[in-house]
Amino acid sequence: MQWIDLRSDTVTQPTPAMRQAMFDAPVGDDVYGDDPTVQKLEALAADTLGKEAALFVPCGTFGNQLALYTHCRRGDEVIAEDNSHLVWHEAGAAAVIAGAHMRTIEGEGGVMAVEAIERRIRVGDDIHEPRTGLICLENAHSNGRVLPLSAMADTAALARAYDVPVHLDGARLFNAAAHLGCEASEIARHADSVMFCLSKGLAAPVGSILAGRADFIAQARRKRKLLGGGMRQAGVIAAPGIVALTEMAARLDEDHQNARYLAEGLAKLPCIDLDPADVHINLVWFRFNAEIDASELMSALKQAGFLANPPHQGAMRLVTHWQVSRADIDRLLEVMQRVLSD
Amino acid sequence: MQWIDLRSDTVTQPTPAMRQAMFDAPVGDDVYGDDPTVQKLEALAADTLGKEAALFVPCGTFGNQLALYTHCRRGDEVIAEDNSHLVWHEAGAAAVIAGAHMRTIEGEGGVMAVEAIERRIRVGDDIHEPRTGLICLENAHSNGRVLPLSAMADTAALARAYDVPVHLDGARLFNAAAHLGCEASEIARHADSVMFCLSKGLAAPVGSILAGRADFIAQARRKRKLLGGGMRQAGVIAAPGIVALTEMAARLDEDHQNARYLAEGLAKLPCIDLDPADVHINLVWFRFNAEIDASELMSALKQAGFLANPPHQGAMRLVTHWQVSRADIDRLLEVMQRVLSD
Amino acid sequence: MQWIDLRSDTVTQPTPAMRQAMFDAPVGDDVYGDDPTVQKLEALAADTLGKEAALFVPCGTFGNQLALYTHCRRGDEVIAEDNSHLVWHEAGAAAVIAGAHMRTIEGEGGVMAVEAIERRIRVGDDIHEPRTGLICLENAHSNGRVLPLSAMADTAALARAYDVPVHLDGARLFNAAAHLGCEASEIARHADSVMFCLSKGLAAPVGSILAGRADFIAQARRKRKLLGGGMRQAGVIAAPGIVALTEMAARLDEDHQNARYLAEGLAKLPCIDLDPADVHINLVWFRFNAEIDASELMSALKQAGFLANPPHQGAMRLVTHWQVSRADIDRLLEVMQRVLSD
Amino acid sequence: MQWIDLRSDTVTQPTPAMRQAMFDAPVGDDVYGDDPTVQKLEALAADTLGKEAALFVPCGTFGNQLALYTHCRRGDEVIAEDNSHLVWHEAGAAAVIAGAHMRTIEGEGGVMAVEAIERRIRVGDDIHEPRTGLICLENAHSNGRVLPLSAMADTAALARAYDVPVHLDGARLFNAAAHLGCEASEIARHADSVMFCLSKGLAAPVGSILAGRADFIAQARRKRKLLGGGMRQAGVIAAPGIVALTEMAARLDEDHQNARYLAEGLAKLPCIDLDPADVHINLVWFRFNAEIDASELMSALKQAGFLANPPHQGAMRLVTHWQVSRADIDRLLEVMQRVLSD
Repeated sequence: MQWIDLRSDTVTQPTPAMRQAMFDAPVGDDVYGDDPTVQKLEALAADTLGKEAALFVPCGTFGNQLALYTHCRRGDEVIAEDNSHLVWHEAGAAAVIAGAHMRTIEGEGGVMAVEAIERRIRVGDDIHEPRTGLICLENAHSNGRVLPLSAMADTAALARAYDVPVHLDGARLFNAAAHLGCEASEIARHADSVMFCLSKGLAAPVGSILAGRADFIAQARRKRKLLGGGMRQAGVIAAPGIVALTEMAARLDEDHQNARYLAEGLAKLPCIDLDPADVHINLVWFRFNAEIDASELMSALKQAGFLANPPHQGAMRLVTHWQVSRADIDRLLEVMQRVLSD
Repeated sequence: MQWIDLRSDTVTQPTPAMRQAMFDAPVGDDVYGDDPTVQKLEALAADTLGKEAALFVPCGTFGNQLALYTHCRRGDEVIAEDNSHLVWHEAGAAAVIAGAHMRTIEGEGGVMAVEAIERRIRVGDDIHEPRTGLICLENAHSNGRVLPLSAMADTAALARAYDVPVHLDGARLFNAAAHLGCEASEIARHADSVMFCLSKGLAAPVGSILAGRADFIAQARRKRKLLGGGMRQAGVIAAPGIVALTEMAARLDEDHQNARYLAEGLAKLPCIDLDPADVHINLVWFRFNAEIDASELMSALKQAGFLANPPHQGAMRLVTHWQVSRADIDRLLEVMQRVLSD
Repeated sequence: MQWIDLRSDTVTQPTPAMRQAMFDAPVGDDVYGDDPTVQKLEALAADTLGKEAALFVPCGTFGNQLALYTHCRRGDEVIAEDNSHLVWHEAGAAAVIAGAHMRTIEGEGGVMAVEAIERRIRVGDDIHEPRTGLICLENAHSNGRVLPLSAMADTAALARAYDVPVHLDGARLFNAAAHLGCEASEIARHADSVMFCLSKGLAAPVGSILAGRADFIAQARRKRKLLGGGMRQAGVIAAPGIVALTEMAARLDEDHQNARYLAEGLAKLPCIDLDPADVHINLVWFRFNAEIDASELMSALKQAGFLANPPHQGAMRLVTHWQVSRADIDRLLEVMQRVLSD
Repeated sequence: MQWIDLRSDTVTQPTPAMRQAMFDAPVGDDVYGDDPTVQKLEALAADTLGKEAALFVPCGTFGNQLALYTHCRRGDEVIAEDNSHLVWHEAGAAAVIAGAHMRTIEGEGGVMAVEAIERRIRVGDDIHEPRTGLICLENAHSNGRVLPLSAMADTAALARAYDVPVHLDGARLFNAAAHLGCEASEIARHADSVMFCLSKGLAAPVGSILAGRADFIAQARRKRKLLGGGMRQAGVIAAPGIVALTEMAARLDEDHQNARYLAEGLAKLPCIDLDPADVHINLVWFRFNAEIDASELMSALKQAGFLANPPHQGAMRLVTHWQVSRADIDRLLEVMQRVLSD
């Protein structure tokens, strides 16, 4: 049976073009700096983001944590939104790897108020205080919302005023760009370093990119080795990454339209709380506003060939990607309608 | 010249009884467990707090950080109020020593909403998530407010429900007890571990106490050595600590009345925003609601024999303690009146 | 130009069968536990080593450091041979990731004397002492020597007596097995955890394996995520890893014979100090016993189509692998002879 | 009963002059930089050692670990003698606090060969290698031997050649100076930073000193706060530290003569292996060259009023200090003679 998998966009299978690219890729020992495919991907990624240099890493968490470890001295304070991936879903790694003192601020739809950030910035020499080492933004945010460019620009201006660097967790950077109708570089310019994933919506099997200034990336390359991210003939996974950037980024809007279509359908169903206008990208979050039988729902979905994560604390997430079609969504809505109308 | 020092209660001089106690103290090598005065202080402190055991440490930051290091595994999440001492004034130590992943919540007057804490607790086995290792409370809070016992009880009940320990930063625990009109142990019972300072309002020259269950303190004793807190004939500083507990705790209410008296006086002055009802202990925080000439104020205070920390971002703090008398406060109010009425 | 690359066995290109395996591999999201190819590799690896479970990781350093991080509490002492890869070539990661207190012992040909280990073991409860958390062995050792099974058994017996676990850095475990003429599992049985590389002599493009008891691997899987080693459709690189194990391990003896042949040739040249009996695997280490013109040598090698790392402190290493033939070695010896006889 | 305590020189009671100094000391809040007695001690200590600045810390382990934490970046390699206090008796703190990658070298009588150090120094930019961040020496060594000035000078010259700093664990620095018949500064000049203890033979109740360049001490002062070593009216313990330096350092030779006298007496007893010439300071180490009844020995010592640590792995240590007289030693030798001649 071929499942329609709505659990996440991390489940995306590599495309045939990606498999061919892996098969054909010229490779070398990347720790020696000899892998032409990795180098091509890194150059392409840096160029796409408007950064001086880029580095291939095994996954998004690796890229984010490497950024913290490279920007910060141990004990430095890292300001991050309370519901961001970095805070919620990276296993506390910031404290282990970078030794960062996290300072979490609850934002409005993922956006931290500039005043709230400023009040917490510490850059003096009071021996009682940690130094603010980094401000982290996430765009698109895990909550499915895209931060407006103005919010990014305001934070960047504040950060510059205090000479604090900004890191952007852009795991779904190209989704954000598609939603904003801009180039990824227009978002990336508001950050000193940017991580984005080649997997997820872009469908590459493995890997993410960390980009920034050349000297920053040189340091990050050294620390990548220490953290066990030095891979040998990595060109075999960089090759599908190139396909991800050149062929898949441009089609993300299709996933967004499908997500919006799904949201509009769900909003009409009983028991569901959802404003389709909040669905900016391919993540459809909604809440049940009444008691539902979750196990019945999950089993009906499964029977109809859908994989989904069960609701958690009354909230549920469905994710579209290149392997979810409009027809799949119609079928899904039918199942949901049936169960929720019982 | 004899300054009246309102910068903090950390500036308190040891009393004559404390000096005599140091002079007379029987001492031994405390790392060998041979110091009778340290043992007497630790037993007295444990008894006073209603805990099984206690440990003498060089200062409050040492005690708080040792608690985190003992309670938590590296990478565990520590929930703490955003304006607490632990977050604001311990130099990021939680990330360095315990390797804690800080999760900061902005409270109302220092009190974190129970719902806000609960939403962040993670105790499952999702490999994406850090485990919640500790919830920290501060009472009295650095902002000068005392947490009501009900707030502490509610947080303790929540913590127990999820089997997460609670640590109490009670740097000014005896001030909180004096304000609440209860025994220190009635506050301490809502926490698994408690740190309080023998210095500050209690006027001992050096040292703080960490108290908790016997097995917890045994582990903390081991980690105290690793952190460089194993002191030899420490009885010489434990002795004034005994005086602090037996003679000074009972007189803190006098400092609080002086602080309230000061607050009432300040509230009548032009340019000052202050509700005396917010002054729970010996910390008088207030804001200037108009532009004032801070350097003129500081110089007038100095000339009149007062030491004070300058206003920071429009807020100022004055602190009472055993070396500040009612007459000193009257003189201080005269100076403030004169400068602010110019 | 097609270089003959003698710098390391890390430079090996994937075989055509590996490329085909990547192309054909069924894959899924391995973080969700859905990648059948990764699961097949992990099961095969565990079985081959005689361990309960195995875990796919991005590289050998990742696997070694993950082992330390999983076995040890922070501050525990890790005993390791002074010239081992872990000490010499993992960038100090043991102190950063595991927070391990390294205790390095200089061995004889890579073998630490059992008495030297025993003298350093600390398992009591003296608060002055770190606990011995792990003993590390490396087989084959980076110096090209294979530890005899008896040495491994003796260390394992000692470790068991003190209830201290043993980790084996088996980056070239299958080379060691080929030299000893035994199964890899006969070596692995003397260790609680084993890391081996699918790259290097086995020629897979990316990845290593960490194997051990099921509960150990479950913990390591959690910590792999924290360290950024959770890869999505990792089956694309696990697939060539399966080919590495099933097709390439058996041919390593050919590399060893070539290495011995090279060593015998070199031993006859002027200026070279080398006992061919010390060449156990595919690493040919030798010293120059007279001043030679290193840059002339390097340039002659390059001109003849050979890549090699330059001599360091009078020592040089040449490495054989599946892309180095007997004919290549004959040509290499001619070049060396010519330069050194000048 | 008044015990004669030979377990360590850490057991020394403060002298009457020290108690008087505590009683009289003018003090202030040292975290605010207001304690005149601490400042006087720090200036005196810096001057005595010929260093620009000095810092008062709670104990020797604190001072050593603070030095590592200030000199090194996390993951840097720290070269130290395998039997030194730092390696053996500081609970693995170097890995926890500084995040140091320890590199231990077994010395000859505590002296690491310069060649052995040099072989391990790494200062290049190879991403596989940790950077050598610090070389540690211990003088006098915990084994009771004093490193000759020439050994210190040779190591210092090597360190300078590679631009690696040297830290001296001088817990018993003044004992070393007394043995060498030189000023403490003549030893200290071979190190960038020096820690020495005011307790131990100098008999102050609490505290040690870290000294070095002014900028190094400024950084260490900041990190001392983070580590919980900021003490308030610390003048009360700094005051006896001043007495320790001005009155007690000069009398250490008496302890050494007593130790040598004890050693000569022991050397004549049956079952004891001891060369009195190895007894450089107040630490008398010896081995039993036959089976003895340790519990009988311990109980005979106790009955005669002596405290001593029991033999460990056939070795025993007895320590002289200002509270052990020549007559005490005569009595001790009698007891030992009686037990060992049975």
